Amino acid sequence: MPVFTAEQLRNVGTKIFLAAGAPLEDAEWVSKLLVKANLVGHDSHGVIRIMQYVRAIQKGDINPDAKTEVVKETRASALVNGNLGFGQIVAREAMEIAVSKARENTCGTVCAYNCYHIGRLADYSGMAAEDGMVGVVMANSPRSVAVYGGLDRLLSTGPLSYAFPTSGEVPFVLDIATSVVAEGKVRVALHKGGKLPEGCIIDKDGNPSTNPADLYDGGALLPLGGDSFGYKGFGIGLVVEVLSGILSKSGFSFLPDKRGNGLFFQAIDIESFMPVDEFKEQVNVLVQKIKSSKLRPGFTEILIPGEPEYRNEKERLKNGISIPDRTWEEIRVTAATLGLDVDALI
Amino acid sequence: MPVFTAEQLRNVGTKIFLAAGAPLEDAEWVSKLLVKANLVGHDSHGVIRIMQYVRAIQKGDINPDAKTEVVKETRASALVNGNLGFGQIVAREAMEIAVSKARENTCGTVCAYNCYHIGRLADYSGMAAEDGMVGVVMANSPRSVAVYGGLDRLLSTGPLSYAFPTSGEVPFVLDIATSVVAEGKVRVALHKGGKLPEGCIIDKDGNPSTNPADLYDGGALLPLGGDSFGYKGFGIGLVVEVLSGILSKSGFSFLPDKRGNGLFFQAIDIESFMPVDEFKEQVNVLVQKIKSSKLRPGFTEILIPGEPEYRNEKERLKNGISIPDRTWEEIRVTAATLGLDVDALI
Repeated sequence: MPVFTAEQLRNVGTKIFLAAGAPLEDAEWVSKLLVKANLVGHDSHGVIRIMQYVRAIQKGDINPDAKTEVVKETRASALVNGNLGFGQIVAREAMEIAVSKARENTCGTVCAYNCYHIGRLADYSGMAAEDGMVGVVMANSPRSVAVYGGLDRLLSTGPLSYAFPTSGEVPFVLDIATSVVAEGKVRVALHKGGKLPEGCIIDKDGNPSTNPADLYDGGALLPLGGDSFGYKGFGIGLVVEVLSGILSKSGFSFLPDKRGNGLFFQAIDIESFMPVDEFKEQVNVLVQKIKSSKLRPGFTEILIPGEPEYRNEKERLKNGISIPDRTWEEIRVTAATLGLDVDALI
Repeated sequence: MPVFTAEQLRNVGTKIFLAAGAPLEDAEWVSKLLVKANLVGHDSHGVIRIMQYVRAIQKGDINPDAKTEVVKETRASALVNGNLGFGQIVAREAMEIAVSKARENTCGTVCAYNCYHIGRLADYSGMAAEDGMVGVVMANSPRSVAVYGGLDRLLSTGPLSYAFPTSGEVPFVLDIATSVVAEGKVRVALHKGGKLPEGCIIDKDGNPSTNPADLYDGGALLPLGGDSFGYKGFGIGLVVEVLSGILSKSGFSFLPDKRGNGLFFQAIDIESFMPVDEFKEQVNVLVQKIKSSKLRPGFTEILIPGEPEYRNEKERLKNGISIPDRTWEEIRVTAATLGLDVDALI
């Protein structure tokens, strides 16, 4: 597996998206977020997506030169038509609008539709937190998850993300699927030939399975909480579906022609309640208390949401990012179709 | 077990709270919500609480005549000091403020501190939904839940509730603890002499247990998601703790002198995004699609969030509410200390 610096991968991504028709600044931003996903350890959302995005451009699922358009607006809200733009561009603009409206009106609520895959939600909730606000992001996407008690795929993995500013070293960013696992985890198990933990998926007949192949043979992911308490993950997943699928006008996850992400964003201004420095210090007090908890047998430390990603980023910034041969070959071929020689870019 | 009508129980509760010092209108509201909890099947939040509330008044933990006070305000937010009032009164007023502000500013965000137990969150999120808005409620409370990987009780059960208006018959209201189970479920198992499902609690040494007594012998509740995926429930629980504990200024769950609930409310105006009738119809389309899902082996139907409660209410309105002898005796004794003869009230 070749190992690259983040800078090298960002440059490759930028040149490819530029050649595929994106403006330079947009190509840089999309590439930056993909490489950030690799840095924090979520390779499933990293440069492995370059080929998919370029194909989506060629098929017309992404318009690389799209302009994000506000189609309905109040002083505290906006409904955004992404006009089939890159998800990363639409989502950034939506959260910027939310933050700007929150500054004047405590809470900015922005929904977006007609946009492609936005990548990691944490990137956008984290923008609000960097601006001293609470950041909230929810997204729906094509169906992969069964409802509690059902076997049809009707919901998406329904991810949600919350980020808070903190005076601690580690950013506080929760970014989770409301299914037990995201589809990427099943794919990794399939490629490795491994088994899944109990309770992640069902096969096409609705029986519990630990064989990742069953997901791709008509099975479905299960909502968080398992056979006894899956109504909780199902319920939270439904909230994500309503806010990011209905309120955003982007369409239900269960629609056969569903593409990309429907989006719900909020930024909440902390100063409306307390000085932001006091809030940050309180978050840090909570985090320190939690991390000092006595441990259960079998656990070696307590990690807060966002901490594994923070550690991965430190490590990969230092030691580089390993890219599987197959992924690198795909990137090379994709670049070649656009007249680019990847090796000359490194 | 004696069986009563809702009307009878409401009357008993009202007379008791009135005698304990609450204004008539407040006594009626608190009593109404307790009986509503019995009606929908959550007896742990019903009239069984009357004795606890009266004791709290006598100890000074509730001031039955408190006035809710807005101590900080913007046009889209309020920070509310409950002045030790009944949680049901403070929470109603907080959600009314949120709805009123949302009508003018898309989203009203209200936090509240210094208030006693609010009962079921669904009552307040449901108020927003009845007004054609999205309702959100989160609450923290005294510690009972371990962090993921830890054995100390540091978080509360971190309940959250979302309600949506719908054109369907059944109100859509999610109201769940972010721990695997709420404490009340463990208490019920203890009283019945039964065992808990796997993965709900740990004993005082951090080992998994199905013996409900272990919770009360230094154990803790576990966050939703179990041993492998409990970081998800833990993460959502932390979000609830930050928004309802820190932003509300009500204090951390882990503080030994923590009392009552810290509260976070939002109402989101749907008309800022789409006509509310269209939203309601879309929610109903989603619900009908979900309910028509093919079933997994072992399941007989799909229920949406709020549906079990809706069914219980219909049934108990018709057949009455059974109150365990022990609970009824407690109510009788509590009333007697206030100079009331419960039997004469029925």
